[in-house]
Amino acid sequence: MKMSQLFGRTLRDQPAEADLISHILLLQAGMIHQVSTGVYSYLPLAWKSLKKIESIIREEMDAAGAQEVKLGILQTREIWQKSGRDEIYGPDMLRLKDRRDRELALPPTNEELVTETVKSVVQSYNDLPFILYQIQTKFRDEPRPRGGLIRVREFDMMDAYSFDTDEDGLDINYHQMINAYSKAFARCGIKTVIVDADSGAIGGKDSKEFILLADSGEDTIILCSHCDYAANDEKASFKISDNTPEAVQPLKTIDTPNQTTIEEVSDFLNISTQKTIKTIAYMSDTEIILVSIRGDLEINEVKLKNFLKANELVLANDEDLQKSNLIKGYLSPINKEIKTIVDNSIFKDTNYCAGGNEFGVHFVNAILDRDIIPTAQIDIALAKDGFGCINCSGTLSSKRGIEIGHVFKLGTTYSTSMSANFLNQNGQPTPIMMGCYGIGVGRILAGSIEQYADDKGIVFPKNIAPYQVIIVSLNTDKEEIQKVAIEIYDLLNSNGIETIIDDRNTSAGVKFNDADLLGIPLRIVVSSRNISKNSVEIKTRVSNEEELIPLESVLQKSNQLLSDYL
Amino acid sequence: MKMSQLFGRTLRDQPAEADLISHILLLQAGMIHQVSTGVYSYLPLAWKSLKKIESIIREEMDAAGAQEVKLGILQTREIWQKSGRDEIYGPDMLRLKDRRDRELALPPTNEELVTETVKSVVQSYNDLPFILYQIQTKFRDEPRPRGGLIRVREFDMMDAYSFDTDEDGLDINYHQMINAYSKAFARCGIKTVIVDADSGAIGGKDSKEFILLADSGEDTIILCSHCDYAANDEKASFKISDNTPEAVQPLKTIDTPNQTTIEEVSDFLNISTQKTIKTIAYMSDTEIILVSIRGDLEINEVKLKNFLKANELVLANDEDLQKSNLIKGYLSPINKEIKTIVDNSIFKDTNYCAGGNEFGVHFVNAILDRDIIPTAQIDIALAKDGFGCINCSGTLSSKRGIEIGHVFKLGTTYSTSMSANFLNQNGQPTPIMMGCYGIGVGRILAGSIEQYADDKGIVFPKNIAPYQVIIVSLNTDKEEIQKVAIEIYDLLNSNGIETIIDDRNTSAGVKFNDADLLGIPLRIVVSSRNISKNSVEIKTRVSNEEELIPLESVLQKSNQLLSDYL
Repeated sequence: MKMSQLFGRTLRDQPAEADLISHILLLQAGMIHQVSTGVYSYLPLAWKSLKKIESIIREEMDAAGAQEVKLGILQTREIWQKSGRDEIYGPDMLRLKDRRDRELALPPTNEELVTETVKSVVQSYNDLPFILYQIQTKFRDEPRPRGGLIRVREFDMMDAYSFDTDEDGLDINYHQMINAYSKAFARCGIKTVIVDADSGAIGGKDSKEFILLADSGEDTIILCSHCDYAANDEKASFKISDNTPEAVQPLKTIDTPNQTTIEEVSDFLNISTQKTIKTIAYMSDTEIILVSIRGDLEINEVKLKNFLKANELVLANDEDLQKSNLIKGYLSPINKEIKTIVDNSIFKDTNYCAGGNEFGVHFVNAILDRDIIPTAQIDIALAKDGFGCINCSGTLSSKRGIEIGHVFKLGTTYSTSMSANFLNQNGQPTPIMMGCYGIGVGRILAGSIEQYADDKGIVFPKNIAPYQVIIVSLNTDKEEIQKVAIEIYDLLNSNGIETIIDDRNTSAGVKFNDADLLGIPLRIVVSSRNISKNSVEIKTRVSNEEELIPLESVLQKSNQLLSDYL
Repeated sequence: MKMSQLFGRTLRDQPAEADLISHILLLQAGMIHQVSTGVYSYLPLAWKSLKKIESIIREEMDAAGAQEVKLGILQTREIWQKSGRDEIYGPDMLRLKDRRDRELALPPTNEELVTETVKSVVQSYNDLPFILYQIQTKFRDEPRPRGGLIRVREFDMMDAYSFDTDEDGLDINYHQMINAYSKAFARCGIKTVIVDADSGAIGGKDSKEFILLADSGEDTIILCSHCDYAANDEKASFKISDNTPEAVQPLKTIDTPNQTTIEEVSDFLNISTQKTIKTIAYMSDTEIILVSIRGDLEINEVKLKNFLKANELVLANDEDLQKSNLIKGYLSPINKEIKTIVDNSIFKDTNYCAGGNEFGVHFVNAILDRDIIPTAQIDIALAKDGFGCINCSGTLSSKRGIEIGHVFKLGTTYSTSMSANFLNQNGQPTPIMMGCYGIGVGRILAGSIEQYADDKGIVFPKNIAPYQVIIVSLNTDKEEIQKVAIEIYDLLNSNGIETIIDDRNTSAGVKFNDADLLGIPLRIVVSSRNISKNSVEIKTRVSNEEELIPLESVLQKSNQLLSDYL
């Protein structure tokens, strides 16, 4: 490709409307164009990268024995109602009516449709197992689209679905997919970690996320310093330091005027926050509940929501509290009427301070199972930096990242709700065992930029760069220089090294800046000065030093530098 | 691919719900699955074919210098209102609202969005020319989806757009695209003709269609037996035989009780239908008009609609006629109040019989320009088999076909309505000169089936067949036979011949039928009987004779038979 002919315009200044570096750079490099809120067009360079990412994913999925299909987009809303997810997705799903007023949905994922499809093909255990996948546009009406390609309303996703007779089969396919993902991401040149994850609206049991590490990421993951424990913070567990058992004291109330926060109460009473209980009221769908946790910890609302099997979980508002005679700032786990969930961080044989459910009053010496009678005691604490690993003696630390892949063991959730059965070896109709697997294609592109970009622009790993080499041709007014530049361009392209040449009639400064901005792995400078020495200058995007090399070694040197590159 | 693992189920019987052969066979072969009315999923074999078609198109577009992009799907309805096409598409376009009640549209084509995109990049003549293209899903809420992949509501289409400074540039790109299309279709192995076409709702000037010839096609094209004149029937012109001038007679009325059709009147008066005038009333949007044509010809409503620049053109109903005091069955071109369009088939110096606009009354000796004063006289006749070619002395004949490609010179229609300008060499803002180009990817697949299928099933041309070779492995219970079959399978695949093996534990009859049904170009039979002779049987899908060839020549023979195949 000649840059004089390339469609796209680099901007001298960074666009003001973007915050995330990948968003800024993709706009500045002229690689994407906004269509509507959270919807982008990919211009030639970005689309070239995305096609490479798609090819890598396709090759690894094919190698894992998965079969590619392409599912229809305009689905009936009816299949979403059948599975119950029409309600669960709520306003996140885009819906429309056709000219005959039939209701349609634009899919954020395809468990329903693929289950319907498979149902029409699979009859007996003989037809199983298999994995289907597709790379296709998905839709999700995000309440707050942001960050360019990171959180969008329309996105290219690889979605795969496995179908087995039993859990052993599912386990094999699940690990097959984890392997395929790991290989694909490695080939894309991005650094990822696999973490235990919550399975969210898709449902199901085991679930892992592939997180691309980037400080700008909106996901927090928890890693052990010692063992391989890794989980996202919605799912992460940790070791709660044992309290030393105390002699239990009788429950009593104490006046704590205007002391409503944990810090205020622990200062006021001069006790550790670990000796206090924090109690929070939630509306779990239409029911009010209380949740208590040790004062120094935070509640993990995802764990809580999953335990409650709630569609919606929000903090109770003043009106909700009043209706149930609950006193704001003094909520108490000691009560008889209201469902109360207690975190595992509350121990027996410890005298806690807890809210008194009366203005300006707290309980002291509140004892679990004597005074506090939980509806359930479970793990609902949010893991944090510095906590102890649940598996070993290591310490947990947190990192930020971007979710780019997700694998789930769905089990028979969908096959049961949609009656997708096979006849087992005894001729019995049995629900098909399913798994589902997703990769955000656009997020790999944006995520790689988040991971590697520097202050000069994008730094593409070689396998997903739109071109491997950029030839910066200076002195374009001199025909003989242009001729040599084109010869190198043809040489590299004909040897399978995808090369772009900057043949524009513009300044050297603009060309060097654009070469950096576009993040092409290798830069070759052809100029009068170099050619007079029968040489060109070559350097990688991440190095600061140009090397002058003889013309005849351009191909060999390019291959060598590329093979060592990201 | 092993058929024992392939996702998809062939049906023994043809599905009853389908009429068109491509629809029947794609369903019977287990290649597609209906999602909703006019929406299909492509299962592995169909998707493999489609990917090959896409690759061929991509390669030819790239070779023609076009640059691939991927445009967003969720577009604002606003850009469609800007161009005026929101109204023109009417209920054919799918629209929806997002969670903030913003109006969105699902694109049937992308002139608006691509013009908006280009506008943000192009500044001066230096940035032109270029061609952008994409292969992407389009949406069109067809009133009557039918024929499987032929007329659908969701379809994969290649859409391309060219941008130039002037008409000469547009002309070059337009012919560049016609060339690229011709090459792509030839590589797909399908037979097409290029015809002059009407440009329909997209607007613009020159336009050609690529028609895949198939008797089942819903398009009629008109071809000259002698020269290369070819047009679709909506656009086709023809030579109207000259009338011998007559001595003009005075206009008079004649009683013609109950004679309301051309045939009745010409019989009643014993004159040729060529001496009668047929007059029809239409509602052109809200205006009533009369259209007159020689009695033996038919009106081409597309030509008429284009001339009138009408959004809607329908036959006037009884109420419309009454309102304008027009008498059904006796409509007359001789009138003073109503706009009257007359076809070029009406000559001066001929005494015509025409309606009298009075019950049971006709005019005779009606003379053009004396009695009949047309608002306009233009070509609005429908061409038919046997008419004379407009360009030579040849005779026109009609054929049926399926439109699979379309090229348009748009001119500056969109750049003007959407203010997409460039600065010309004098620094003047000038509207960009545009062309647009489309290929129906799914229609090539279905069309190739319509073109080649026989009574045993699909016949795929080699370049778009999902696999080139199918190995029918018989005696699958005998390990040594299976071993040989797999060796051939590996040999062919590793030599770049995509091969599928039917290793299912089923009867030879089922396997032979399925091999024919799936339309794979080459069939190799591995059986105990053949292997005992150290041989296999080989035949192409279109031949009836198997050839017994020695094992060691399988690769060479396969290559040879394939190179001579469709």
